[in-house]
Amino acid sequence: MVNPLSQKNVNKMKNHKRFDLDENEIPKKWYNILPDLPVALPPPLSPATNEPVGPKDLAPLFPMELIRQEVSTDREIQIPHEVLERYREIRPSPLIRATGLEHVLKTKARIYFKHEGERSPTGSHKVNTAIAQAYYNMKEGVESLITETGAGQWGSALAYATHLFELACEVYMVRASFDQKPHRKTIMELFGASVFSSPSKNTDFGQQILEKDPSNPGSLGIAISEAISHSLRNDEAKYSLGSVLNHVLLHQTVIGLEAEKQFKMAEADLKGPDYVVACVGGGSNFAGLSYPFIRAKLHNGYEMEAIAAESVAASKMSDGEYKYDFGDTAKTTPLLKMYTLGSDYIPPPIHAGGLRYHGVAPSLSVLLDSGVVTPTKFTQKIAFEAAKIFVNSEGILPAPESAHAIAATIDIARRNKDKDITILFNLSGHGLFDLEGYRKYNANELE
Amino acid sequence: MVNPLSQKNVNKMKNHKRFDLDENEIPKKWYNILPDLPVALPPPLSPATNEPVGPKDLAPLFPMELIRQEVSTDREIQIPHEVLERYREIRPSPLIRATGLEHVLKTKARIYFKHEGERSPTGSHKVNTAIAQAYYNMKEGVESLITETGAGQWGSALAYATHLFELACEVYMVRASFDQKPHRKTIMELFGASVFSSPSKNTDFGQQILEKDPSNPGSLGIAISEAISHSLRNDEAKYSLGSVLNHVLLHQTVIGLEAEKQFKMAEADLKGPDYVVACVGGGSNFAGLSYPFIRAKLHNGYEMEAIAAESVAASKMSDGEYKYDFGDTAKTTPLLKMYTLGSDYIPPPIHAGGLRYHGVAPSLSVLLDSGVVTPTKFTQKIAFEAAKIFVNSEGILPAPESAHAIAATIDIARRNKDKDITILFNLSGHGLFDLEGYRKYNANELE
Repeated sequence: MVNPLSQKNVNKMKNHKRFDLDENEIPKKWYNILPDLPVALPPPLSPATNEPVGPKDLAPLFPMELIRQEVSTDREIQIPHEVLERYREIRPSPLIRATGLEHVLKTKARIYFKHEGERSPTGSHKVNTAIAQAYYNMKEGVESLITETGAGQWGSALAYATHLFELACEVYMVRASFDQKPHRKTIMELFGASVFSSPSKNTDFGQQILEKDPSNPGSLGIAISEAISHSLRNDEAKYSLGSVLNHVLLHQTVIGLEAEKQFKMAEADLKGPDYVVACVGGGSNFAGLSYPFIRAKLHNGYEMEAIAAESVAASKMSDGEYKYDFGDTAKTTPLLKMYTLGSDYIPPPIHAGGLRYHGVAPSLSVLLDSGVVTPTKFTQKIAFEAAKIFVNSEGILPAPESAHAIAATIDIARRNKDKDITILFNLSGHGLFDLEGYRKYNANELE
Repeated sequence: MVNPLSQKNVNKMKNHKRFDLDENEIPKKWYNILPDLPVALPPPLSPATNEPVGPKDLAPLFPMELIRQEVSTDREIQIPHEVLERYREIRPSPLIRATGLEHVLKTKARIYFKHEGERSPTGSHKVNTAIAQAYYNMKEGVESLITETGAGQWGSALAYATHLFELACEVYMVRASFDQKPHRKTIMELFGASVFSSPSKNTDFGQQILEKDPSNPGSLGIAISEAISHSLRNDEAKYSLGSVLNHVLLHQTVIGLEAEKQFKMAEADLKGPDYVVACVGGGSNFAGLSYPFIRAKLHNGYEMEAIAAESVAASKMSDGEYKYDFGDTAKTTPLLKMYTLGSDYIPPPIHAGGLRYHGVAPSLSVLLDSGVVTPTKFTQKIAFEAAKIFVNSEGILPAPESAHAIAATIDIARRNKDKDITILFNLSGHGLFDLEGYRKYNANELE
């Protein structure tokens, strides 16, 4: 007996196509965009003197090698052997052609994505820099890393990486997430990290806030302040940041450098995608995928649109000001020139916790200001709607953050239904930690 | 400045080694152990007549092709092109040498595992048969599949597979899990499935139970009864089972057939592992990895110990009786000869929900009875302890079910510290859906 639907079935649910790299094709060098920026990067300034901050000002916070990378003007920076060894356990990530999504959208556009969540032990791209940062700190004799985390992606990635190199790890987790998402804490603790709800009683700043408002839900800006002050009072400890800074974005370029090779496998003669899309919290995920392609755009006159997707809940790129601002709420960091909503801005509690940051990386800010990168913003509802279309056509559940890149991709694909174009986006993480958000979406309970 | 610890670091956290197959090396045929069993498989009996059940008795429940596979004596059964296409989206799964675990255990034994959770969209091996079952039902014009699920692994795998082939899917989920694990329901619903808490008001049997005990927590046996009776009253619908039956175990052999090739890559001259280990709920995961190796053991006199790890909460292999019993609580299924604790046995609510079944596959029961397979059992606490050792040495969080196989592996590796042996176990799924269990473990709240 033949199924009347079977033909429809075969047509409808297209198989997606994978382009896998051999582990020996993992890039041996990271790409540093600083020397290629159309405008020199405005230096970080000391809030006290308004003078540029020098390496020795950063020495209490970071190991020397990361400070060197932070200010380096070398286009390429060697990936240490020991880091490459660890990358081989979690990379390369596949490039996948989303033929199922293309079909559902009825578009001629060819859609590709990097799947950073598939092999990542903590489910997102954050491990790419966590491993490098833990390694350099270990080499310089640091015994403990202190950091902050919002929804928990970064904290769990650093807990994993510090465990690999036997460093202690202490994480200040934004209280709202600490209370609502106990399972990210569970993972961090499995890897031996200590997790504190922020604002906490561990730091003066945390105590001040709790005295004013014992039920303060916390914010990334507050957690950064606490992590920095905690690390500054401990000589054996350094501070670690999961985005925004040059060296963090640098480590993520392994994503785009792999994608360049895979895109050639997939599209033979083409220079690169017509659109490169990623979501933006602090900018490391966007930079990781796009900077290698932007290099080609800046040098080889290859025409490409770089689309940075943010949340309307923290739309610094679309609605922020380009100015010097603090990276944290206590105003302890150097001043960074970036698109910002103000260091005291507290975003509403959307499920895409990774996008809830008031500012964006200085290097990305330069590219936005000079028109090389175009911002776009989406509501939580639209992002989840895009995620639903994606999981139903590709079978992969995206993180709510990544869903913003999918929303942008769907928008481009629909506007170019009949055009022979290619779109590449970064699926920065899977959504298996965010099922409460999907439950609310299914139940129509999302704000 | 050199880290005094760095040498220790480099020694301690060994990198694990991956052995990846090309997608073209996914087996083209499944292996059917029935013709190779040392004793002929006792046939399923009709409870009414005590006569063997024939294909036409099964026709109301299953499509003809699956019934053919259920009784087939062909050693190899072709995997349809359309199923292979889908396998290429989720397979091959990597074989990984757990050098980190070996190091922590200070053993000379070489430990390998198949990582079925890495690429599976629902996190476990269950999709291997879900895809095949959905495909054959679609080909025969079935419009809807009805099934049961305990913790939700099977239900979400079938929801994914039915979505691929555009079948409707209705899932009876054991009430205890339905209430405690809403997120598995969320995933099933994302793939378009309807999920009912069992016992439910949908079926007479469910109603009877609820009348006696409105707060009955349900069991797999009850849920099976409800799913069967629901499917029997709907002509367009068939029933689908996630383990126990021959055709289900058959589809899982893709795991072991891949592992045979990968083990040759890893160990060159060796015939096969000295120990093959997997956990057992109904037996499909164990059969999937071990049956291809057991074939070699039965035919080529290759010496290997096949270790089946179960939970003390449902220790049918270690403590059950080998007899004809029902597969469900309402006694609606044919009688199957198997190791069983009795079809009315209700296991305590351990976190390894996939192991909470009263019986075990008839083919596996024959192998147990004839001494080809050796059972072993572990408490929940020991399984989580093993999982902790594994996540700390390999960086991968195992499902609580798989943790039982890890416990058995650790036990073997420790007993053979100084022996040049190899152990292969199946990591049937990841533990990202089971973090509540890990939270309790960390907090020392596990029974």
